[in-house]
Amino acid sequence: MKQYASMTHAEQKAEYDRLLNEYRAFCDQHLSLDMSRGKPSNEQLELSMPMLDVLHGQHDMRAEGGVDIRNYGQLDGIPEVKRIFADLLEVEPDNIMVGGNSSLNMMFDCINWAEALGIMGCTPWAKLDKVKFLCPVPGYDRHFSICELFGIEMINIPMKEDGPDMDLVREYVENDDSVKGIWCVPKYSNPTGITYSDDVVRAFAALKPAAKDFRIFWDNAYCVHHLSDTPDQLLNIFTACKEQGSEDLVYEFTSSSKISFSGAGIAVVAASKANMADLKSKRTIQTIGPNKVVQLMHARYFHTADGIREHMKKHRALIEPKFNVVLDAFDKELSELGIASYTRPNGGYFISFDTMPGCASRVGELCKQAGVVLTTVGATFPYGKDPEDKNIRVAPTFPSIEELSQAVTLFCLCVKMASLEKLMNA
Amino acid sequence: MKQYASMTHAEQKAEYDRLLNEYRAFCDQHLSLDMSRGKPSNEQLELSMPMLDVLHGQHDMRAEGGVDIRNYGQLDGIPEVKRIFADLLEVEPDNIMVGGNSSLNMMFDCINWAEALGIMGCTPWAKLDKVKFLCPVPGYDRHFSICELFGIEMINIPMKEDGPDMDLVREYVENDDSVKGIWCVPKYSNPTGITYSDDVVRAFAALKPAAKDFRIFWDNAYCVHHLSDTPDQLLNIFTACKEQGSEDLVYEFTSSSKISFSGAGIAVVAASKANMADLKSKRTIQTIGPNKVVQLMHARYFHTADGIREHMKKHRALIEPKFNVVLDAFDKELSELGIASYTRPNGGYFISFDTMPGCASRVGELCKQAGVVLTTVGATFPYGKDPEDKNIRVAPTFPSIEELSQAVTLFCLCVKMASLEKLMNA
Repeated sequence: MKQYASMTHAEQKAEYDRLLNEYRAFCDQHLSLDMSRGKPSNEQLELSMPMLDVLHGQHDMRAEGGVDIRNYGQLDGIPEVKRIFADLLEVEPDNIMVGGNSSLNMMFDCINWAEALGIMGCTPWAKLDKVKFLCPVPGYDRHFSICELFGIEMINIPMKEDGPDMDLVREYVENDDSVKGIWCVPKYSNPTGITYSDDVVRAFAALKPAAKDFRIFWDNAYCVHHLSDTPDQLLNIFTACKEQGSEDLVYEFTSSSKISFSGAGIAVVAASKANMADLKSKRTIQTIGPNKVVQLMHARYFHTADGIREHMKKHRALIEPKFNVVLDAFDKELSELGIASYTRPNGGYFISFDTMPGCASRVGELCKQAGVVLTTVGATFPYGKDPEDKNIRVAPTFPSIEELSQAVTLFCLCVKMASLEKLMNA
Repeated sequence: MKQYASMTHAEQKAEYDRLLNEYRAFCDQHLSLDMSRGKPSNEQLELSMPMLDVLHGQHDMRAEGGVDIRNYGQLDGIPEVKRIFADLLEVEPDNIMVGGNSSLNMMFDCINWAEALGIMGCTPWAKLDKVKFLCPVPGYDRHFSICELFGIEMINIPMKEDGPDMDLVREYVENDDSVKGIWCVPKYSNPTGITYSDDVVRAFAALKPAAKDFRIFWDNAYCVHHLSDTPDQLLNIFTACKEQGSEDLVYEFTSSSKISFSGAGIAVVAASKANMADLKSKRTIQTIGPNKVVQLMHARYFHTADGIREHMKKHRALIEPKFNVVLDAFDKELSELGIASYTRPNGGYFISFDTMPGCASRVGELCKQAGVVLTTVGATFPYGKDPEDKNIRVAPTFPSIEELSQAVTLFCLCVKMASLEKLMNA
């Protein structure tokens, strides 16, 4: 197939008319598919159903250490759950605090506390004229929404092949004390799927921030969410920080939302001793303790970090074919046309898709008209504004293979149409 | 028995020496009892064990309306749980938002949001020079801790027989726009056990605050926690507010922490339409949704508000004898001595005990030396400072009857000793 840009106007027109007919046929099918969010499918949720039975008929409701998990207390979580997450994140259990079901909630709270109370005795951000966060783009819309709510100014940082542009990060962080944080999804990044290189992780650890209360929000959501026999390796940022004496730079987060149940998982924060003391000084006033029945269910079902790693193979078996359906379609339909690029991740929940500049919104529009809802185009950028209007986050996990095949066929069609419209009007 | 104050010094000395011998015998027993917190006992927790089995072997994981409770979403809770709590609090389900397991967490968040983001467009409290809360005393230490953390100045409001001194409340609220809130436990109050009269509730509803963002934190923790066949009746504050057009004044909270499991309950906030929209505008950024497996367990176990009311009778059967052990001992040992007064609640978790002024800390000290830990004396007042050093919160639910008998015998002994020490040194 000829690249679209090399076609004559007449060829483009003919191709477009052909596509338009196909598109109309799609519209006549009245599809109704939602590919907007990174949600696990029903089959994935079924994998953890035995977890709901694990306390059935049990009489021993005590966690390690003897605490009755049905009663108040155990602010930072039960020991067995702390150990599992400590193993997954390669930290000590003392550096783990277990929360409710949402790691987003824990990130939000860290920022809310920083705004209202300040980090380790620093001035509360709400009292400052200006607070800024660095946002590697494309990134996760829910991170950006938190900043937007608190009026935190967001600065786009381009993502490179191996992580954020660290020269730019360093420039901002080390010279501007109103820069208080950066959002990172360091492994199987949302949405690009890339994993930060060791050099990038070391560059983070080596930052000398102008602001004492600058924190790296290290959202390691996909730490065990592999889609490959040769999974990506992420250097442990706390190890890198130890070499620099900079362990207080990092708040790390993860959860079991995409391991057990998105609607009933366990979230944790990992942090240095000093950060943990600071976070606990707030948390201990906020609550008497998290839901520990859910914790015991997880502990007695998964037992260990290895138990979780084994379980994740079952998720992979369900997810990988879906990624392949999408990627195969992209390869077949789009790879030779010179109108798109896309990532081929080793893990995580997303494929990041770039159209020609200025085409992404139109693709979203065309898909929606034909009954397929994508992640809102632009959402992968702060303020919902993709400056080049080209990035689309593709979330293949929730639909069935059949639905996905339909949706991706339509998607490719819409990409072609939007590209031709652009080229013909250029 | 003669009142202690009417005794001669010699009689007091003789009585004290006798008590001291008894006290020494107690110390030799090396007791180790914790009466510090309002925790349910093991037997109470056992009552809800079938709730853990209710999803066993179930395949229908959809809540009313069709949402899969294992997946993301349903920010404000599943319909069946909203309906149960709406019934309990006598509001509409639309006025209910379900959170995690801790109503304290929801109160904290409301204040944290007000501090960092502001209520309904008002200036965030963190930007103001001074923020004050009214604190009916004695009250709940964890409410006060939140204010202390945020640097909110607390003003003591004396509790009367039927609720806070409303003349004083009105004086502050209507004339000082730095007064932003008041803590209330309107039913079976912590620790006094009293329930606000209809007049008091109406006086709250009729407040015309100087501050637009003044809110009543209506912690209805013990709404169904009766200890009597003639339970107290609390006027619905939203009904009273409707008459005044003041529904935006109130955030109401409750939870199932002392209905099902303290370590795995469900918390809710109830609020007016405008408040709910404001709270949700924050909550929707904070999380994708609460733990809904726990919600479905509650819904399928309790079914309705009446299901909860029936269940609470079982709690009463376990708790009431414990309150009686304490009250009987107080009646027998102390009522004639003119050295103490105490409440006789129709519900809730506490008995509020007043020593002679200046004696409470000494009672706490003596009890602790003999191995019985009480709620930290002073904790029922802001900043842990009881100006008269007389109030002690007695929490009878957690210990066994046998332990409680020992503890209360010791307690009475310590009250007598501390009183005599005071009288002899006067």
